[in-house]
Amino acid sequence: MVNQKYKDRLSNKSVIRELAAYARKRGQEIGYENVFDYSLGNPSVETPKEYNDAVIKMYQTMDSMSLHGYSPTLGNTHAREVIAASLSKRFGIPYEAKHIFPTTGAAGAIAHAVRAVTKPGDTVLTFAPFFPEYMPYINDTGAELQVVPANLPTCQVNFPELEKMMTENVTAVLINSPNNPSGALYTEVTLEKLAAFLNKSQEKYGHDIFLISDEPYREIVFDGKKCPYPSKYYDNTLSCYSFSKSLSLPGERIGYIAVNPKATDADILVDIFGQISRGIGHNCPSSTAQLGVAAVIDMTSDLSVYETNMNLLYDTLKDIGFEVERPQGTFYIFPKALEDDAVAFSKKALKYDLIMVPADNFGAPGYVRLAYCIDTEKVKRSLPVLRKFAHEVYGK
Amino acid sequence: MVNQKYKDRLSNKSVIRELAAYARKRGQEIGYENVFDYSLGNPSVETPKEYNDAVIKMYQTMDSMSLHGYSPTLGNTHAREVIAASLSKRFGIPYEAKHIFPTTGAAGAIAHAVRAVTKPGDTVLTFAPFFPEYMPYINDTGAELQVVPANLPTCQVNFPELEKMMTENVTAVLINSPNNPSGALYTEVTLEKLAAFLNKSQEKYGHDIFLISDEPYREIVFDGKKCPYPSKYYDNTLSCYSFSKSLSLPGERIGYIAVNPKATDADILVDIFGQISRGIGHNCPSSTAQLGVAAVIDMTSDLSVYETNMNLLYDTLKDIGFEVERPQGTFYIFPKALEDDAVAFSKKALKYDLIMVPADNFGAPGYVRLAYCIDTEKVKRSLPVLRKFAHEVYGK
Repeated sequence: MVNQKYKDRLSNKSVIRELAAYARKRGQEIGYENVFDYSLGNPSVETPKEYNDAVIKMYQTMDSMSLHGYSPTLGNTHAREVIAASLSKRFGIPYEAKHIFPTTGAAGAIAHAVRAVTKPGDTVLTFAPFFPEYMPYINDTGAELQVVPANLPTCQVNFPELEKMMTENVTAVLINSPNNPSGALYTEVTLEKLAAFLNKSQEKYGHDIFLISDEPYREIVFDGKKCPYPSKYYDNTLSCYSFSKSLSLPGERIGYIAVNPKATDADILVDIFGQISRGIGHNCPSSTAQLGVAAVIDMTSDLSVYETNMNLLYDTLKDIGFEVERPQGTFYIFPKALEDDAVAFSKKALKYDLIMVPADNFGAPGYVRLAYCIDTEKVKRSLPVLRKFAHEVYGK
Repeated sequence: MVNQKYKDRLSNKSVIRELAAYARKRGQEIGYENVFDYSLGNPSVETPKEYNDAVIKMYQTMDSMSLHGYSPTLGNTHAREVIAASLSKRFGIPYEAKHIFPTTGAAGAIAHAVRAVTKPGDTVLTFAPFFPEYMPYINDTGAELQVVPANLPTCQVNFPELEKMMTENVTAVLINSPNNPSGALYTEVTLEKLAAFLNKSQEKYGHDIFLISDEPYREIVFDGKKCPYPSKYYDNTLSCYSFSKSLSLPGERIGYIAVNPKATDADILVDIFGQISRGIGHNCPSSTAQLGVAAVIDMTSDLSVYETNMNLLYDTLKDIGFEVERPQGTFYIFPKALEDDAVAFSKKALKYDLIMVPADNFGAPGYVRLAYCIDTEKVKRSLPVLRKFAHEVYGK
């Protein structure tokens, strides 16, 4: 007897993954270079040579126990110290190693953070448009994810709707800035207003409301800007980070949770994450990956290609007549489809070998997501095809 | 509000980890070389040079996306094929890649296996003596672990007690051969009898009962023997493996589940493991580790030191007058303490800087576990200390 809950999900697979699979199959027919595959958020730029060199050196010089032995329950101490020091320097928050918990990417970080600060039956709020995998991440903890409607087109927090949906049952709020799928950044004003509202709500209901901040795109910000750091604005913040995008390491499954030192129970939260790991059998990320990111902590891949691609796509989409906001970060752009039904729109685009993801299950029906973490050369070749599609099908 | 369930656990930490921490602290006072630390199952022999060389070569030659990009949802295809081929050849079971799911060690494997084939409220049976971390692995899925009393001293299956505890509510049975902490191996006769009993019980209750077989010590077997492979005896078997011990890679968190091709729903179980990963945010082991073990799939570290250590300890313990079975595998030995209270015994031993783990929470009160994955030279130096302790405190 296989568990029915998971069996039922087999028929409800990720739209993104299905489109990616279609793109790969189509690629076998016509050559993948001819498929304009904007489906998957898989970083296209290279991991920095310094990361690979650091790992090679570790493998050549370190003793076996130090490199491949068990990490302590709460993660490699050196890696935790290095991460704490880097965050403290960058954001002016006095993190110590005891506030840092290495995780298997941001996914593992969010799943642990939610388990730590909610209990089954609690409500977790997030904001549309949102990454659809939040649904299993949150709901499988026993808490329930509720989605605050989008504030389009800016994708800043929708405060009137948030106020309506805030109840005594809400113990955590999940945000994602820079945002997948919209590319929007929360402004300082948004974060200040959100913090004030959450502080007021904590007082009103007499319990903590944790801000779980999903930040895998923190380093991918355009026009020379910096992304405001949510934990600076609200003490009860758990910052969930991944090196997947900044160092192009998604396969290595490495990230962390940083607990704001002023958060409630800040001194025991990391211990609690360790207890959660015992229950789901995932005790630490790989020791190689922990030591590897520690060795290049303040580096990133050359992320400039994403801004180049964004500008090419944004200018063309605008010129064609799409309703679209200029992304401020990430490697996504989020135009309104040229008809109300984004699924139908996306299907018609497939005939032009343009792969775009309809955003119905991102909480923004009528929109599509383009992930432009692909070669600039291919983006350039896709532009006339986009024009042709919009013209032939929609008379644009 | 931190989740109380996990907070309560902070006061109930692993005895093994606490003793290991004591040993490290004591080591700072008198030099760790003078602490006879038999607490932790952390492999002491080196990872094979071939593994490190294979990883170095991958880092020098592979493109970034192939090495560090996202693994497919169900794991790296090449690694799955290599693992399936190796198992098929060794054990004569026609595994294909679709039956193999890479996991973060055996811990991740067990936690996924239990979630897949049980539902909350179900009973999972295991056999004393058992690895105490089974408690959180199983109980945090919502199923309940019940422990069949030990069949001492052989540690084969206690069939009379198993028959008493088998109910309609049991949907999985968890075994561990070679066994931590006893070093016992299930014989072919035991596995045949267990399979017959489980088949009869499946028929009686009209539902599947899966055998979850925890096999991290499969390769550490003494006297030139081989460990009988449980899946050969019972179709509904999920074999949970870790490379932690065989390749001395515990920090890399790499293992797998192998689904017997004749198991119920064998063709969808791996898909279901993938769905479970979505819910706990742990999508795959590190890509480096998956490719690394695939490159050296049929190798092991030089494991002979464990047999050397075992013989030294066994002969001395016997000679002193301990009641002790000769381990047939693993790197553990499991003598009866020299007084009824193993905790008191273990505390008295600390005065001689002998660190042994009392087995009360392994389901075998009165026994202690010695993990002899340490240098042979240190084992030798510990023998007169063991004799002195037994003589001075217990008149042996």
